[in-house]
Amino acid sequence: MEPFEVHILGCGSALPTTRHNASSQVIRIGNKLFMIDCGEGTQLQLRKGHIHFSFINHIFISHLHGDHCFGLIGMISTFALLGRTAPLHIYADPKLEELLQPQLDFFCKGMNYPIFFHHIDAGKHETIFEDNTVTVETLPQRHRIPCCGFLFKEKPKKRHLIGDAINYYNIPTYMRQAIKDGADYTTPEGEIIPNSRLTKDADPSRSYAYCSDTLPCPENCDIIKGVDLLYHEATFAESEKSRAATTHHSTAKEAADIAKRAEAKRLLIGHYSSRYEDSSKLQLEASEIFPETMCAEEGAIFNI
Amino acid sequence: MEPFEVHILGCGSALPTTRHNASSQVIRIGNKLFMIDCGEGTQLQLRKGHIHFSFINHIFISHLHGDHCFGLIGMISTFALLGRTAPLHIYADPKLEELLQPQLDFFCKGMNYPIFFHHIDAGKHETIFEDNTVTVETLPQRHRIPCCGFLFKEKPKKRHLIGDAINYYNIPTYMRQAIKDGADYTTPEGEIIPNSRLTKDADPSRSYAYCSDTLPCPENCDIIKGVDLLYHEATFAESEKSRAATTHHSTAKEAADIAKRAEAKRLLIGHYSSRYEDSSKLQLEASEIFPETMCAEEGAIFNI
Repeated sequence: MEPFEVHILGCGSALPTTRHNASSQVIRIGNKLFMIDCGEGTQLQLRKGHIHFSFINHIFISHLHGDHCFGLIGMISTFALLGRTAPLHIYADPKLEELLQPQLDFFCKGMNYPIFFHHIDAGKHETIFEDNTVTVETLPQRHRIPCCGFLFKEKPKKRHLIGDAINYYNIPTYMRQAIKDGADYTTPEGEIIPNSRLTKDADPSRSYAYCSDTLPCPENCDIIKGVDLLYHEATFAESEKSRAATTHHSTAKEAADIAKRAEAKRLLIGHYSSRYEDSSKLQLEASEIFPETMCAEEGAIFNI
Repeated sequence: MEPFEVHILGCGSALPTTRHNASSQVIRIGNKLFMIDCGEGTQLQLRKGHIHFSFINHIFISHLHGDHCFGLIGMISTFALLGRTAPLHIYADPKLEELLQPQLDFFCKGMNYPIFFHHIDAGKHETIFEDNTVTVETLPQRHRIPCCGFLFKEKPKKRHLIGDAINYYNIPTYMRQAIKDGADYTTPEGEIIPNSRLTKDADPSRSYAYCSDTLPCPENCDIIKGVDLLYHEATFAESEKSRAATTHHSTAKEAADIAKRAEAKRLLIGHYSSRYEDSSKLQLEASEIFPETMCAEEGAIFNI
């Protein structure tokens, strides 16, 4: 199967620490790289992770708090210095374009690639990106300002041809795509060979959901039902539950509860408050409710 | 003597690497901290260096290239999150205020401390800061955009009282400040005790000059004559001399030549191009002309 990976560039919260960077992830699906959020220092994390800058063409910004977007201008400038020519697409609240454009005009004058801003309505669940293999949908979050998560889904894949059967019936190359799509084959003698004898099941279509920053949103569980990997913010431990509510964040337990309701296969927690020296307490609290809980760490890669 | 230190937070050039951060320094004079430049990631470097955020009240920005100022918005936001109330003064090209203010209005709404912008005319040599112990002067640089260096000088200090002599003549406390300033003492009997018998020489007034980013500017050598420590950019080795000229940067040899002409006591080079794996070649080239050459490195502290 092609790679479907989540690279953690930063999984801290608003206050930077020497343990965690501000939020950013790169999602690799096949040979495409998608970025989610871009806190200060993201470009350095890309370098540390040996991630090819030039393969990043689409950046999704969940919301306009600094720890999710202050790294954009530096990274965009560096792309320009490195001679990028490919367009860059940024999906974000309309306010980002308003704030970033004057900086681009001044700091990146004469740069050789265009930036296209795509405005997100964080209150809506809708498909905001689609190509031949992937869709990206927004997941409205509950935060202090408009915020949305993202659901990455592989499109249904083609069935696998059974080599021996294809050879046996000597099926011409030009017909094979249709057979991958499920068509039967009619031999020159008029015999109909059912698709089930020519193909095996397609690889499953995998999915990844990013939910941060947010209070628990059970209303999204139906949308992300059965997701292969759910990244859910777990800024606080249960002892800080009231603080989580006030600041519109989630506890590890609440993240686990969402994973359970959504029947996620695995949960990945992150966006840790700077008060925690490590994530063990958060993992423990989440695991009691949802055993398949993992902790994000800078530099870690999670395979889906 | 009170501390006069240069803390290197970043000494790389425009392209960030895993070896060097973007430009930033903290100058500690007594218990005051001054920041020069603030590239992306500066706030993290402050944390790594255990430098007290709250003692930084004055930030001097040499010029508006991203690697010298992209870290401001994140650091200012973090100051706000940490509950800062003390005013912050930023000395920079007027364009910085124009670019930063809309970001402050949006990202730092309701923050509890004021920011005062002081506009620099990079073409002029003038005193832009002065308090009871320190002055800061601009040093016009030659770069692709308006750029100025900074000269930090301790003001002349008071002479040291000779304890035994003060006791012997039983000089009242209220007169001692005048004697530190150089006054003679007249005893109740009318005898004049010359100041030279009551005091020892004051500590020397130390100075630090920051010259980056720039072509060599021999016209500044008179202004910085005899400076205790000169930080001078040395982006390139001599083999890239023509590239240095095109991009308005200096070679290590040119930096050393300026140090020599200015009769600096010591030279500190930095702003290394990302093409150099380490600074040894640059140091070697500079040392041939000016032996007292040191290389900036992140985390290093240079005492003056």
